[in-house]
Amino acid sequence: MGELVFVGLGLFDEKDISLRGVEEIREANAVFAEFYTSVMPGLSVQKLEEIAGKEIKIVSRRTLEEEDGKPILQEANKGKAAFLVPGDPLIATTHVDLRIRAEKQGIKTRVVHGASIVSAVVGLSGLQNYKYGRSVTIPFPEKGFVSETPYEVILENRVMGLHTLCYLDIRAEEQRYMTIREGLRSLLDTEKRKKAHVITLSTLVLGVARAGSDNPTVKAGYVGDVMNHDFGDPPHTLVFPAKLHFMEAEALITLAGAPEQIRERFK
Amino acid sequence: MGELVFVGLGLFDEKDISLRGVEEIREANAVFAEFYTSVMPGLSVQKLEEIAGKEIKIVSRRTLEEEDGKPILQEANKGKAAFLVPGDPLIATTHVDLRIRAEKQGIKTRVVHGASIVSAVVGLSGLQNYKYGRSVTIPFPEKGFVSETPYEVILENRVMGLHTLCYLDIRAEEQRYMTIREGLRSLLDTEKRKKAHVITLSTLVLGVARAGSDNPTVKAGYVGDVMNHDFGDPPHTLVFPAKLHFMEAEALITLAGAPEQIRERFK
Repeated sequence: MGELVFVGLGLFDEKDISLRGVEEIREANAVFAEFYTSVMPGLSVQKLEEIAGKEIKIVSRRTLEEEDGKPILQEANKGKAAFLVPGDPLIATTHVDLRIRAEKQGIKTRVVHGASIVSAVVGLSGLQNYKYGRSVTIPFPEKGFVSETPYEVILENRVMGLHTLCYLDIRAEEQRYMTIREGLRSLLDTEKRKKAHVITLSTLVLGVARAGSDNPTVKAGYVGDVMNHDFGDPPHTLVFPAKLHFMEAEALITLAGAPEQIRERFK
Repeated sequence: MGELVFVGLGLFDEKDISLRGVEEIREANAVFAEFYTSVMPGLSVQKLEEIAGKEIKIVSRRTLEEEDGKPILQEANKGKAAFLVPGDPLIATTHVDLRIRAEKQGIKTRVVHGASIVSAVVGLSGLQNYKYGRSVTIPFPEKGFVSETPYEVILENRVMGLHTLCYLDIRAEEQRYMTIREGLRSLLDTEKRKKAHVITLSTLVLGVARAGSDNPTVKAGYVGDVMNHDFGDPPHTLVFPAKLHFMEAEALITLAGAPEQIRERFK
């Protein structure tokens, strides 16, 4: 019976794989990887091949989404294949599809988890995990059309006292990564139309760049200021805090350089 | 200037640390670890010490929460200390507190992320990440008092079409880990009082045990059946799905053995 192991690569470079992940790759008879669902800015495939002692075949979105991951399933059917994925491997829906397809063909599947932007940004924000509501992605405008969903999700969460984690669109195959400034501009555009005072220049926001690297940039402040902050290279992520606990405000001030005035809210 | 590096250990055993994490420990002049915020069922501290080539000092809840982590900060002040934490290290609020305290003393802090239950359960569930609402912990009853918060959160999320991830209480120092059966019983107790038909024996639920191990148990079904399923050793986690997409139903059926009837909802 064939076997397919999904291995999470973590966030930044080839050193973010776990010891368990390296073991799995070494035991596989074929190793595949994809780098279009997320960006790992420091990753060298060659270094990863050296660590694992295996050749790694990179598969495209096309192979996974149009050809249903056939080359991977063929190799898995013969013995044991490993499929390397940035972050935690099953957060991307397309990989859940591949897993279902494998199981339906009688291929045994397993998962080696990796560090994910989902928990990394929560940790770096210093805001409490259980106070995050649903998350949302801010997409690039399509033919000038700006999605209003992110704006609505932030509002919905805030009304319930919940923080919102906003992923920013990634089009790795076109090398386009939405920046914090572009994400905020998209939300301010929606504000102009909807006028519900959800995002203004004085709304508190947190930007995170390159989570998982040795030099992430984590900066909290008002939208007007954060838009002009230099966050450096992608990937970027945004968090909109709702009502803060005292300790959450302390975290934003000490760990993310938020203005001291946010403390006033607790006097 | 001193340095304190928070290193995530991941989910199951000593092999879940990343290569980056091992490097950081090797360069530290003092290494601490805590194992009370989560349980890593397969972990051997001795094996971790062999991998890292360092002695590891285990600190208690008391050291962190009553003594403000003093021994860790003292060593960090002298050079570079590493603090090893199950999962992704800053998900536990108490470690955010320690980080703030370190920074206020002029100690530089960094984070090496690890695989977290936060993303692992989302991935194993096959349900879409952006459809999860806020998460909640089901606590052990205190003096017979059963918290109604988890019940309310599940209801709130479901009304909005959102899934709920329920962590189950862990009291590692007493070796008490809430099981899926105990968690469900607690919710059914609340149902008896509140009578809002949020949790009945025919509610769809997903149980996950030992995420991150080689043999996690992932089982979806109706509460009445899942309560009697043998999930084996802790840790356990629960997910209450809300309205499902077609592909989410397929994932629950194929990957978690949910009854085929849930497909009927899409006819």
